[in-house]
Amino acid sequence: MATAAASKPTGLEGIVAGQTSICSVEQGQLLYRGYDIHDLASRATFEEVAFLLLEGDRPSADQLARFKAELSRERSIPDELVAYLKAAGPMLKARTAVPMDVLRTSVSLLGNLDPQAQSNTHEANLAKAKRLTAKIATVIGHMQNVIDGNDIVPPDPSMSHAENLLCMIRGGERPSAEEARIIDVSLTLYAEHDYNASTFTSRVVAGTMSDLHGATTGAIAALKGPLHGGANEAAMEMLKSVDRFVSSGEGTVSDWMSDAFASGRKLMGFGHRVYKNGDHRASILRDLGRAYAEKKGTDAAKWFDYGDEMIRIMRDEKTIHPNVDFPCGMTYFVMGIPVPQYTPIFVAARVTGWAAHVMEQHANNRLIRPVSEYVGPARRAWS
Amino acid sequence: MATAAASKPTGLEGIVAGQTSICSVEQGQLLYRGYDIHDLASRATFEEVAFLLLEGDRPSADQLARFKAELSRERSIPDELVAYLKAAGPMLKARTAVPMDVLRTSVSLLGNLDPQAQSNTHEANLAKAKRLTAKIATVIGHMQNVIDGNDIVPPDPSMSHAENLLCMIRGGERPSAEEARIIDVSLTLYAEHDYNASTFTSRVVAGTMSDLHGATTGAIAALKGPLHGGANEAAMEMLKSVDRFVSSGEGTVSDWMSDAFASGRKLMGFGHRVYKNGDHRASILRDLGRAYAEKKGTDAAKWFDYGDEMIRIMRDEKTIHPNVDFPCGMTYFVMGIPVPQYTPIFVAARVTGWAAHVMEQHANNRLIRPVSEYVGPARRAWS
Repeated sequence: MATAAASKPTGLEGIVAGQTSICSVEQGQLLYRGYDIHDLASRATFEEVAFLLLEGDRPSADQLARFKAELSRERSIPDELVAYLKAAGPMLKARTAVPMDVLRTSVSLLGNLDPQAQSNTHEANLAKAKRLTAKIATVIGHMQNVIDGNDIVPPDPSMSHAENLLCMIRGGERPSAEEARIIDVSLTLYAEHDYNASTFTSRVVAGTMSDLHGATTGAIAALKGPLHGGANEAAMEMLKSVDRFVSSGEGTVSDWMSDAFASGRKLMGFGHRVYKNGDHRASILRDLGRAYAEKKGTDAAKWFDYGDEMIRIMRDEKTIHPNVDFPCGMTYFVMGIPVPQYTPIFVAARVTGWAAHVMEQHANNRLIRPVSEYVGPARRAWS
Repeated sequence: MATAAASKPTGLEGIVAGQTSICSVEQGQLLYRGYDIHDLASRATFEEVAFLLLEGDRPSADQLARFKAELSRERSIPDELVAYLKAAGPMLKARTAVPMDVLRTSVSLLGNLDPQAQSNTHEANLAKAKRLTAKIATVIGHMQNVIDGNDIVPPDPSMSHAENLLCMIRGGERPSAEEARIIDVSLTLYAEHDYNASTFTSRVVAGTMSDLHGATTGAIAALKGPLHGGANEAAMEMLKSVDRFVSSGEGTVSDWMSDAFASGRKLMGFGHRVYKNGDHRASILRDLGRAYAEKKGTDAAKWFDYGDEMIRIMRDEKTIHPNVDFPCGMTYFVMGIPVPQYTPIFVAARVTGWAAHVMEQHANNRLIRPVSEYVGPARRAWS
């Protein structure tokens, strides 16, 4: 029943929308400025990766120390934003807003207050990018403190970016070294991924010569969707439904999957527009998360048992592989992070990639403006 | 010196990114759902055009009355937003924020408070689109009242959308019938334009199955840029510089243009990615604006004298035509509208087109995710 129109590629699939020197997404490898994601995940810290993406090269020891000091200095957020986060408490409680929406408004408000908001020079963009990277983690932490009715936990200059993020979210409970490392690696894995939908949004916005905060605000809006960053939250909600099904004795994971296949339900956290043989990032996070969960005990490890079984069935029956959002959901869950903060944490990492793309776009700009195929009514008179 | 890579089309020029039944942008005509823009500008009101875009067809008399009543009911804005607009006064004064940035935060905040914010059904999107259309005009009015240190002017249910907008911006001075008509026509001309950069942004955001307020927030960020909606403000600033040049006796309009050509300066409000023989909307607004300015006297008409001379020189020497933003700048200026509100007024109109595209995207969705050409460093080890 497919028509000629329906068989055309849609969603810009396979269309080269531009060049980049930031990231290479291939079936065989994922590179950030030439460095393989496995190398970065095992040998670099998120601070090093953020510097690499923003500045273009890996930092020397001195550069890294300066960058960490800059992030530390910039972690505090303005009073106007703290006031908004407190006011957002009732909006989150009423569920008219989810944390991604509050983060979107927060970044837009940070733009309203940034002394360099109206400048698109490389220097201004770089300074703003560092401020945003530092402050977004604090916004997420403060927001969770408001949700939990806790005192606001200030950032701690003795901690890494990942440690601060998790510590603030948890209301001041300092992460173990293993927990800090897992969050750090997840931030590295989430930091950049070429022309994905949110990064592409940031480039389309920047392509009108609009500003970095606007581009980031738009990118957050795009990342929220369950077909993009929102998949890490959706994947965990799916696993909870598998758990309810299995724990109540209704059937096995395999039964749940058969039901899902029969009803044509989309399984969140599986498949990828670009990767056809699997996402390089997924197994890195799955292995770290599984090892951590096993130490925590069977209540934690069961999520990885479900997950691994689902991965096996999807691979054997559909030849579809998990993407990074699938193990991310389970991993963050066993670390006690509230589900609606999974996509905001993705933002805390991806802001570095977005900013690198905005700078690249501004440095060699052309308006991004495609055309459309008109399929509406023929010309008619308004009389 | 052009390399093979440099000669490739960039910015998705000429690439069909999808289908639409909302708008047809052609060299020979501009149609909104089949109706020619000249017909709409001369025979329809903005309320009718907004209904046409959002609902898909022109309204009956009953439907139009109901739609106007809905807009009227939805024009008030929540207390949290009024509080933010008051707090934004110092940010606007400090110039860390411009009105487009405040409007971006406002729409994001409206999303945080909207009872249907998390629903992407057609029904929810349509209801949200009407609320946004009604409220954005009020946000612009209140913001200008804050800037001017005036009392906030509430919307007046006896006035049309265009009348309300201008009346609120002016601190309560009711527009003449001619002024209301000019604003109304400008809103119609600005309401929709297929896959322009801001609308495309809204579709990329919506394509992740993110929500209407997020898509609109991203679109506002994109419209701000001087290569897109920001051109109406930039065009007027350019005309002011022509005026200073001519009034101070430095030379003629033609001399100013020769200087601009010699220095390679880009002239704002001229040229268009799609239209090569001129923008259908430009002469409609130029004629209305010129007639109005002539009645106001020579101080007002001089802007159109400058503008017409610039249009003539650009056409004769560069074969480049003005786009709608060029006459818009002059027209709004002689009506006494503050320049930084020109692009927000563009938003007040285009929000209808954006929402129509978000609904169209959600109704038949596919993630919009192009690929990029990697031109960065070859694989290297992080050791």
